[in-house]
Amino acid sequence: MRTVTFLPSYRKIDVERGTTLLDAAQRAGLNVNVVCGGQGKCGKCVVYIQSGRVDFDKQKYGRFFTDAELQKGACLACESTVQGDLHILVPESTLIQEQKILVEGLDQAIDFRPSVRKYYVELQPPSLADPSPDLSRLLWGIQKSGGPVAEKMYAPLEVLREIPAILRHSEWKVTGTIGLVPGGYRLLDLQENDTSKRVFGAAVDLGSTTIVVYLWDLVTGKVVSVASNYNKQISCGEDILARVNFARKNGLTKLQSLAAESINQAITSASNTAGIDREDIYEVVVAGNTVMTHMLLGIDPAYMIAEPYVPVVRRALSVAAGRIGITCNPNGGLFIFPAVSDFIGGDIIADILACGMSEKEEISLLVDIGTNFEVVLGNKEWMFSCAGAAGPALEGGEVLFGMRANPGAIEEITIDPVTLNPKYSTINGIRPRGICGSGLIDLLAELLCSCVIDRTGRINTEINNPRIRKNAHFPEYVIAWAKETDIGKDIVITENDIKNLIMSKASVHAACITLMKEAGVTRHEITTIYFAGAFGNYLDKKNATIIGLIPEIEIEQIKNIGNGAVAGANIALINRRARKKLDDIAYKIAYIELNAESSFMDEYTGSTFLPHTDLSLFPMVQKLLESCRIRRE
Amino acid sequence: MRTVTFLPSYRKIDVERGTTLLDAAQRAGLNVNVVCGGQGKCGKCVVYIQSGRVDFDKQKYGRFFTDAELQKGACLACESTVQGDLHILVPESTLIQEQKILVEGLDQAIDFRPSVRKYYVELQPPSLADPSPDLSRLLWGIQKSGGPVAEKMYAPLEVLREIPAILRHSEWKVTGTIGLVPGGYRLLDLQENDTSKRVFGAAVDLGSTTIVVYLWDLVTGKVVSVASNYNKQISCGEDILARVNFARKNGLTKLQSLAAESINQAITSASNTAGIDREDIYEVVVAGNTVMTHMLLGIDPAYMIAEPYVPVVRRALSVAAGRIGITCNPNGGLFIFPAVSDFIGGDIIADILACGMSEKEEISLLVDIGTNFEVVLGNKEWMFSCAGAAGPALEGGEVLFGMRANPGAIEEITIDPVTLNPKYSTINGIRPRGICGSGLIDLLAELLCSCVIDRTGRINTEINNPRIRKNAHFPEYVIAWAKETDIGKDIVITENDIKNLIMSKASVHAACITLMKEAGVTRHEITTIYFAGAFGNYLDKKNATIIGLIPEIEIEQIKNIGNGAVAGANIALINRRARKKLDDIAYKIAYIELNAESSFMDEYTGSTFLPHTDLSLFPMVQKLLESCRIRRE
Repeated sequence: MRTVTFLPSYRKIDVERGTTLLDAAQRAGLNVNVVCGGQGKCGKCVVYIQSGRVDFDKQKYGRFFTDAELQKGACLACESTVQGDLHILVPESTLIQEQKILVEGLDQAIDFRPSVRKYYVELQPPSLADPSPDLSRLLWGIQKSGGPVAEKMYAPLEVLREIPAILRHSEWKVTGTIGLVPGGYRLLDLQENDTSKRVFGAAVDLGSTTIVVYLWDLVTGKVVSVASNYNKQISCGEDILARVNFARKNGLTKLQSLAAESINQAITSASNTAGIDREDIYEVVVAGNTVMTHMLLGIDPAYMIAEPYVPVVRRALSVAAGRIGITCNPNGGLFIFPAVSDFIGGDIIADILACGMSEKEEISLLVDIGTNFEVVLGNKEWMFSCAGAAGPALEGGEVLFGMRANPGAIEEITIDPVTLNPKYSTINGIRPRGICGSGLIDLLAELLCSCVIDRTGRINTEINNPRIRKNAHFPEYVIAWAKETDIGKDIVITENDIKNLIMSKASVHAACITLMKEAGVTRHEITTIYFAGAFGNYLDKKNATIIGLIPEIEIEQIKNIGNGAVAGANIALINRRARKKLDDIAYKIAYIELNAESSFMDEYTGSTFLPHTDLSLFPMVQKLLESCRIRRE
Repeated sequence: MRTVTFLPSYRKIDVERGTTLLDAAQRAGLNVNVVCGGQGKCGKCVVYIQSGRVDFDKQKYGRFFTDAELQKGACLACESTVQGDLHILVPESTLIQEQKILVEGLDQAIDFRPSVRKYYVELQPPSLADPSPDLSRLLWGIQKSGGPVAEKMYAPLEVLREIPAILRHSEWKVTGTIGLVPGGYRLLDLQENDTSKRVFGAAVDLGSTTIVVYLWDLVTGKVVSVASNYNKQISCGEDILARVNFARKNGLTKLQSLAAESINQAITSASNTAGIDREDIYEVVVAGNTVMTHMLLGIDPAYMIAEPYVPVVRRALSVAAGRIGITCNPNGGLFIFPAVSDFIGGDIIADILACGMSEKEEISLLVDIGTNFEVVLGNKEWMFSCAGAAGPALEGGEVLFGMRANPGAIEEITIDPVTLNPKYSTINGIRPRGICGSGLIDLLAELLCSCVIDRTGRINTEINNPRIRKNAHFPEYVIAWAKETDIGKDIVITENDIKNLIMSKASVHAACITLMKEAGVTRHEITTIYFAGAFGNYLDKKNATIIGLIPEIEIEQIKNIGNGAVAGANIALINRRARKKLDDIAYKIAYIELNAESSFMDEYTGSTFLPHTDLSLFPMVQKLLESCRIRRE
């Protein structure tokens, strides 16, 4: 064994010789950033050897470092193996930082019909006149107190074994917990005396970056607390592809336990805030994308990342929470949302449940945008879905000053049509550091309306304004001058940034149109467009229409449902009828593989204009642009 | 630690100082006879200290030994604690001997509809045109091969996790095993290639003395082998009361594992005989009395041995076989028969299933006799049951030369009405050692018909015949002279023996009449009487009627069903519809507590005559006795 000491925290860990520094750091509890999943590709897991010997191939990985850095002992943690006792400096930039976390409530009025209920009963002790078995006596008592029919309830062996002692020790005054599971009503546990007011449930949005937990009091039907946590799997790879690759290298067990641990931490934090005992949580409902839920269940996701993109299971699953390491009541259950396909996961089914589109006569369009996007079109009779890569632009990636929705990000912006000066607001109100997704949509629409760019996205460099200039490669528009920023340089958007943004929005729009054609539906027949996800939450609906991110409908008919995944999980937690419908919803949804649809590419080309080549699809935008043009002239 | 060496086997075991010799012997694998369950009451666990020091209270337990025995180091294993290294002689009489074991087949023609079936499928690998999930692909394949509807099947987590690798490694040629369990059709496991011919199931009669296992091929519907084992719990107490007392002294875990171990040994032996792999056994069906099945499940039986005699559970149970240590396929299921009450257990429900009385319009009477007896009366509409202590006489206990059905037991006997000489046959045809239950019934009837005894059971000592004589206390009849026996002394039956036998038979008869009165049924309405259990199997039906063990009906209408427990378990194993009916049967049966019925004592008194005080209840017997009397005179 060799001892590795990590600085500046002085965490120590004993490992076998040959262990990678990444493994050692993770075992020591450090959340090292590994975007590529530990494949030596991303160069994010930089550490510095202070003393001791490691094996690291400078020839192969030297490109990630300057000579000065190499001199200081820099190496990649994932590609260095422990050879002797070590002191390793881990710079802060190598550790994962917690992100701003968005939590959402439940807007709909949902019938409160939880799947778990407790019944306090005072039983007659057995007598020669009534020597019925303990279990029958208990279940009849529960039935008489308003519970399910005794014959439909059953007790698993572990509870059955406890029944006789608990009944007698409590002098026949007990509280039974009954949960509705596939197969009937299960006696989840039996407690002495009256504990019937202590039944809680957790609804979980298992995101690849963030985990959100809503803790519900299943007696009062109220949310008692909300907590969030970052997904600790991020230490095994930032994106899903990297994590699946990590899983393929014998990492599935680790990813499984990290997912469970991340959920547990959030549940613990929510329980502590609410002052409740985790043993009183009898049910956990999880909505997540298909790869995430496979990993949480410890099911190999390997076949989902390459053609033909095959998940192992899509239906809803109920498992004992303890089986996968979720710490709630030992007999508590875990419910996992079903999926449609590899790409349309339980998070999207949760969105659908949250917006209610599967219950309506009218046709709705659901759009969930992140690095990937998912689109669902339909009503109570039929649904079509598709998914694709939006590219990182809409989330601030591949844009020079793009950034995530962190403090200092410009999130709203307008441009004076005469002076071309912008007015913006930032997250937390501090000096700007960059611009995030919602700000970029605003910017694109405002630049178009003020004629700084044309409908192809080209900047009109003939305009005589200091904010419009040309840098080494591309024309650009200055959003904020260096002196007003937090970063000491001008924040700009370049023509190249705009091109990337247009490509992203074109994918989403083309996907919408492809589904509409598949279903034979025109934009006039769409009653509502729902935006789900963090991106949609801060989006200006009108600007999203102006740039042609989505088909044009009445602006008031565009709605943000926020974190639809957790909202749907909430509904499934508190309403057992809703939960029963989920598999039906999932099976009803047809999945359209965009790569297999030749029409998608045609639609995409048309969509790479602002808002589109065919303006007749955007009559409101057409009118608006007309008036802007006239005003400008 | 002290080393205890047991002679003559030289088994050694290291134990803590203070351990009882009984514990040490059991841990060393010796099956010590403990009728009382280790309470120092029965004096059966005699051992001799050869060297070393034990702590044993001669004052308190000396009464079990002669002075000579004490001098030789005799002590009770259950009441002696190890103080130093020891050499202990264990006489053969202290060890439990295996008994003659009776195995029964299945006489009825039962529809072959097992609950478990394997399906071999060759699946199309996934493609972009059909990227359905692995589970759906597999279940659709199984459905297409004649399996259940895909939506009704489900896979537990442990199988789900194995699916992707097995499908791909086998190149999509797999065999799925589907079991019908409460809650749906469960995918019990998935194997590579075609193993569809290898599905087996075990039906188990879990008796307190003997365990019988039938191993079935669930593809061909044939029994492939039969095995039996004694119930190893006997080392913790011979009778059920002793075992429950053992359980109360923290012994439940041990009794649970001994029950499982006894079943496992029988299953192993049956599997080895048939040359099959235990992993191919997917289902085990167990019928046993209520205390035995509680113990097998590890559920506390303590409340069943005292008023008001309350079991924990009576309904049928399905549990994972592995959960209670039964070694078959790791995902195999265990089905336990339901019970009616403490005293009418799953073994009796199995009897009812085996004789089919719950399916018939006609009224039947079922009688199962051992140390205890159980009686069930009814038809497809209604059933009444009761149970009681028959006393040991009918099994050869409390009778001077009574013995169990072991080699040398007189099992059949007739008496020449003129010479009064008997003709008998013994088990295995060797010289007689004693007389077992069926022989005693014959003897009683023959003595009555030859007027050696009168209807009260008194021996007519005025008959001048060398076989009729008076010993120190009672008149007696000589069955076999010393020279013809294996034991070197006259085998006789005394008037006291006859009194004990009459008391036993009177209990059974009075129980039958009590149920008939409860149901308002006369003997004319009873179409069939079924005898279940080993006792009934060798019984002469006519003689049983003559002595008034059962109500008189046509002799041809009395049937032996043999080991009804295993026959019923066989039916439930191979016919899933039969299994589904069991809870209904159990719930339909009313249990009559004889001690609470004042009429029972009246019936008992009337029944203490041969056949009864009221001869009009036995017209055939009355006629017979009349003709015997005339012939004798």
